Amino acid sequence: MSSFFRSRWVDAPAGVEELDPDSLAPGFVAAGVPCGLKDGGGTDLGLVARRDGEVASALLLTRNAAAAAPIRVCRDSCRAEEVRAVIVNSGNANAATGERGIADALRMRGEAAECLGLEPETVAVAETGVIGVPLDIESVSAGIEELCGALSEEGAGSFSDAICTTDRWPKRCTVRMDGVTLSAQAKGAGMIEPGFATMLCFVQTDAELDNPDGHLRCAVAGSFERITVDGQMSTNDTVVLQGSGEAGKPLPEGLLDAVVLQLALEVVADGEGATRVGLARVRGARGKEEADRVARAIANSPLVKTALSGRDPNWGRIAQAAGMALAGEDLPELGPDEIEASELAGAEREAELTLSLDRGDGEAGIFFSDLTHDYVSLNAEYTT
Amino acid sequence: MSSFFRSRWVDAPAGVEELDPDSLAPGFVAAGVPCGLKDGGGTDLGLVARRDGEVASALLLTRNAAAAAPIRVCRDSCRAEEVRAVIVNSGNANAATGERGIADALRMRGEAAECLGLEPETVAVAETGVIGVPLDIESVSAGIEELCGALSEEGAGSFSDAICTTDRWPKRCTVRMDGVTLSAQAKGAGMIEPGFATMLCFVQTDAELDNPDGHLRCAVAGSFERITVDGQMSTNDTVVLQGSGEAGKPLPEGLLDAVVLQLALEVVADGEGATRVGLARVRGARGKEEADRVARAIANSPLVKTALSGRDPNWGRIAQAAGMALAGEDLPELGPDEIEASELAGAEREAELTLSLDRGDGEAGIFFSDLTHDYVSLNAEYTT
Repeated sequence: MSSFFRSRWVDAPAGVEELDPDSLAPGFVAAGVPCGLKDGGGTDLGLVARRDGEVASALLLTRNAAAAAPIRVCRDSCRAEEVRAVIVNSGNANAATGERGIADALRMRGEAAECLGLEPETVAVAETGVIGVPLDIESVSAGIEELCGALSEEGAGSFSDAICTTDRWPKRCTVRMDGVTLSAQAKGAGMIEPGFATMLCFVQTDAELDNPDGHLRCAVAGSFERITVDGQMSTNDTVVLQGSGEAGKPLPEGLLDAVVLQLALEVVADGEGATRVGLARVRGARGKEEADRVARAIANSPLVKTALSGRDPNWGRIAQAAGMALAGEDLPELGPDEIEASELAGAEREAELTLSLDRGDGEAGIFFSDLTHDYVSLNAEYTT
Repeated sequence: MSSFFRSRWVDAPAGVEELDPDSLAPGFVAAGVPCGLKDGGGTDLGLVARRDGEVASALLLTRNAAAAAPIRVCRDSCRAEEVRAVIVNSGNANAATGERGIADALRMRGEAAECLGLEPETVAVAETGVIGVPLDIESVSAGIEELCGALSEEGAGSFSDAICTTDRWPKRCTVRMDGVTLSAQAKGAGMIEPGFATMLCFVQTDAELDNPDGHLRCAVAGSFERITVDGQMSTNDTVVLQGSGEAGKPLPEGLLDAVVLQLALEVVADGEGATRVGLARVRGARGKEEADRVARAIANSPLVKTALSGRDPNWGRIAQAAGMALAGEDLPELGPDEIEASELAGAEREAELTLSLDRGDGEAGIFFSDLTHDYVSLNAEYTT
């Protein structure tokens, strides 16, 4: 029945109901407009806001040391626990743009805050797209006024459009469960020449959030931190959770986790050139950290990623990647008894493989996209 | 003039002379024969030996925890400082083959030792090719007798043929300098379905080696440990250095380093689907370890590797990879002033890029192949 929770790896929470994905969680307004950054006039400037009333929030940012200007602005001068609005553009990542990039991100944020009557420190800024090119701040500035006028409770769809780059489909939902509504929009892992795979995700809810940072970190640890397209940490990754509290209830158990996991799986499935999504499971490791390290080595191996696209149940490549992750250790030989890889050969879009190490209780799973000719074409053939 | 030292990154030592690459360093004999492991009847069984007289040697093996049977045999019962002979086959890696694989590797080594009148502990065994398939030990056994009869001082060429798998060209040389001769044969980074990129290298010299292990480790640290095709550590990598001492002189300064560096560069250039070789240089890091870590992140980034094949001087991807390697650190923005990437766009087969971090004196360089459609085809389209 569910059209949103469509991955085999996501259990839709019992009793969850899907609403029109244009509608936002009560207490929020949003909009998206074209301001001229994207070729072809696509929607490229978005705003989501909790204008007044109580708010609780959390804000997670990429740890990449070459972080973009909006990340630096958020890191240095945003009140993460009181994010009322997020202004976001696609088409330009405002990364590696120097002092001017910082000034542009601050101006973009300041004008959005002014338009909304908010303090700038309660507005987050996010950007995605081309890097190393100065932001056309005049176009953004002109768009902000239109954007503020367009804000609506039904604006989730146009907001979602505004954050997409080369996404092949929108990634969004509005769901209700136990009297609480949650809307969410994500993008990635598209590629803007000469850019990066960038992941953005915004979540709004009318639930009362008592520990938004803890909840968001936990949900992200089980979703966006468990996916890989090409192993490349972005300069612009941003995840925001905002709660209006208007439902007068806490978030239903499991709802946020399920929504962000499905969105994360959409991002992998829409990875550059991807045709299939794999789950590399590792069991029996000496602890969670070891399981995670081995699973990541498998998920990031180009040999395993091509085996996924080529439908080759090649357990030897899995053994090799695991052996690399555990280099120097004394490991019993890994063969078909320890490695279940038959789903790689199957017809399904989602395929699992499992490695059983038999040396402890540690378990982990990493979701990954396959490596295809289209990945090479996307990244090699369109040059600057 | 030099046909062997052809990389821009290798300085041929002053006064080095190239000899017929079929000839071995004095004191050594070798041969290669077909024994039936390779489809089509190619040469697939090789032996190089120092039958009597003094010998000094060093033996380096992959650290992969899923190591193949021959690696386990060498690790457990070879006298690394007294390797008189190496028996090697291509066409089957004898990896993930269980107890039987160990028994086969021991038998192969034992029969070669018997044929040569040597103790088994002074014979190393190396294998490369398909994995997870039992070795056809009867064919190998039948071949060993023929092989011993074929041993000759001019057998370097057929020995070199015997170690190749999908190599597009042989990687070998015989050079003389300051009265010392050195012959060397390498293979990789070919792909045998359903196998791994595997690297083997054998070096013979008539020099007196006072510290073969130290010399070999140092040479390998500057060559084979500085290359990457797909970031995947093999299950079968083996490097052997043998010295007969017949020249009565030490190894000329720089000769071993230059030879193995050129061979390592041949391996990268012949990497799966490779059309170009890049050198990722990092300067101004906080120490050598940091420089190495950042250079490896750049060299292994599929975005940088596709930029190399696509001739895209995409410094943004280099900044992103460096920022990932230094995640969580406070780094000034990296832009065109810090990143020289123009050679990526050039016509040359060998291209350098340089990142200057300006936070210390650490320097490192990693050689890498580009990522192309042929890599995907080789690894995705030929399934088990």
